[in-house]
Amino acid sequence: MLDISQYREAVTDYLHQKIQVKEPVNLYEPMVYILEQGGKRLRPVLVLMATDLFDCDYRKALDAALAIEIFHNFSLVHDDIMDDAPIRRGKDTVHEKWDINTGILSGDAMLINAYQLFENYEGETFKELSKLFTKTAIQVCEGQQYDIDFETREDVSIEDYLLMIEYKTAVLVGASLQMGAIVADTSKECREAIYQYGRLLGIAFQLQDDYLDAFGDPETFGKQPGGDIIENKKTFLYLKTLELAGRSEALQLEHLYTISPADNSGKIEAVKALFESSGAAELTRKEIENYTDKAFKILDRIELPEEKKKPLRQFGEMLMNRQV
Amino acid sequence: MLDISQYREAVTDYLHQKIQVKEPVNLYEPMVYILEQGGKRLRPVLVLMATDLFDCDYRKALDAALAIEIFHNFSLVHDDIMDDAPIRRGKDTVHEKWDINTGILSGDAMLINAYQLFENYEGETFKELSKLFTKTAIQVCEGQQYDIDFETREDVSIEDYLLMIEYKTAVLVGASLQMGAIVADTSKECREAIYQYGRLLGIAFQLQDDYLDAFGDPETFGKQPGGDIIENKKTFLYLKTLELAGRSEALQLEHLYTISPADNSGKIEAVKALFESSGAAELTRKEIENYTDKAFKILDRIELPEEKKKPLRQFGEMLMNRQV
Repeated sequence: MLDISQYREAVTDYLHQKIQVKEPVNLYEPMVYILEQGGKRLRPVLVLMATDLFDCDYRKALDAALAIEIFHNFSLVHDDIMDDAPIRRGKDTVHEKWDINTGILSGDAMLINAYQLFENYEGETFKELSKLFTKTAIQVCEGQQYDIDFETREDVSIEDYLLMIEYKTAVLVGASLQMGAIVADTSKECREAIYQYGRLLGIAFQLQDDYLDAFGDPETFGKQPGGDIIENKKTFLYLKTLELAGRSEALQLEHLYTISPADNSGKIEAVKALFESSGAAELTRKEIENYTDKAFKILDRIELPEEKKKPLRQFGEMLMNRQV
Repeated sequence: MLDISQYREAVTDYLHQKIQVKEPVNLYEPMVYILEQGGKRLRPVLVLMATDLFDCDYRKALDAALAIEIFHNFSLVHDDIMDDAPIRRGKDTVHEKWDINTGILSGDAMLINAYQLFENYEGETFKELSKLFTKTAIQVCEGQQYDIDFETREDVSIEDYLLMIEYKTAVLVGASLQMGAIVADTSKECREAIYQYGRLLGIAFQLQDDYLDAFGDPETFGKQPGGDIIENKKTFLYLKTLELAGRSEALQLEHLYTISPADNSGKIEAVKALFESSGAAELTRKEIENYTDKAFKILDRIELPEEKKKPLRQFGEMLMNRQV
């Protein structure tokens, strides 16, 4: 087994080899631009790790890993248009550097390119990878639509929210791991177990992301906390506070989510105080722990030597401690 | 063999059965909206006709036919955003009725949905349909990019233009027919021949569309002629005129393509006069005939009873006479 940085290097090398600018350059330059920016390559690394875990040469999974990375970046390009985001990974977003039309069309070509990479697999492996990819890609679109809908909906339940983050974020983590299992041709049980490990870890990760956006240390979190509060985002913390708080505090929170003061620091502090006093902050920490525990228990139950499972366990631990 | 209207009905029935609004409705309503608008369903009808031609039950090709129709409509939704087009088939375009973000995301989901329909085929048929679809879809994106690039490029050659219309329009016609051949499990030769029939007919059709946009009868053409001239579109007629005309006439044409008078009728007449006097109009008519003839010769050479080929021949004739 390699370590994470070695898998990441394998992904990056393969990407350089496979993704190059060609004619028409205005279609392919934005693709190379976003893919060359780096990012953490978490998803393709998971594909390779899972392949290795199930005793198969990780290099056989490079096409699937690259497909997942291209798909992830396709979704970033289109989401950044929808969110009107000017910056991604410290650089101009594609539609900012070029224009919206370029972002739409290059994104489309990326999605199709991802499918093309599965053609390097034979027979049933090709079909299973394609089917899993399609199912996951549709869920990611549905998750994005729910996220957009929630902005203007007043009746979002905790259940709705969990389904949204599952679709928008977690299923792609599960699918990445399952692709490794498909390439390694494991049993259906192993495929399902490794998918669930990723899905649960993905939900835990997203809940933690919500939590840290309010309570994170700006030094280690990597961005200025309070962003979700400024944008009045209906996160798990917000929805749980409405559920747990008394009528007066709930109204106060709803009121705070209607104002946009020039200086947001007072609003952020008041909202955070409600998140804490209602017990929602504590409960969110517990929920993150629950999902993480459930994920690790599934990994425990996979019948493989512990030493084989160690890299994936470490990956999960690092993800939840924000070291990757 | 059925007639065109019967194949069309089969497509429409299947579409009603398969494509319905579900959650999240804001993702699926635009999809149903554009697919229910009708249109001529030329591409899916071709899939079914080709399946029948090669002695296979056309109903086996309904999923492939629907995939092609959904892909075609996906490309319309995204192209209409890029072209800022408010109306399509006499109705509001998706981004006009909803918004750009809805158009982007529903379009993405349609592209993925098209892939999903191929899952209803087994083994090699699945792989061959997916591969052909992917190759074609990438070419369609490249064709769209070339079309956008040509608006601001001053060095577009006739060869460039032909490649653009081949990718943007013709390859999907060829792929529709080839999908029918794949479902019918014909020889490689038959698949290639029927693809070429569609590709050549698609190029002829697009050249004719350019020609009729200048010289068509508004009664039968269905839209007001002169649109391409008003938009200074570098069509085959325009590029051929620049190639054939003397220096003075070429400069006059280039000048006309820089002005936007309030009343366009004088500009349209002057441009059309140059198209005629240069010989480009005559040459375009010949080129349309050449492509059409080549297409029909390929159909002739396919080793099947003439009676089997008749519907496809009629389809081509109707297409070139604008009766479908």
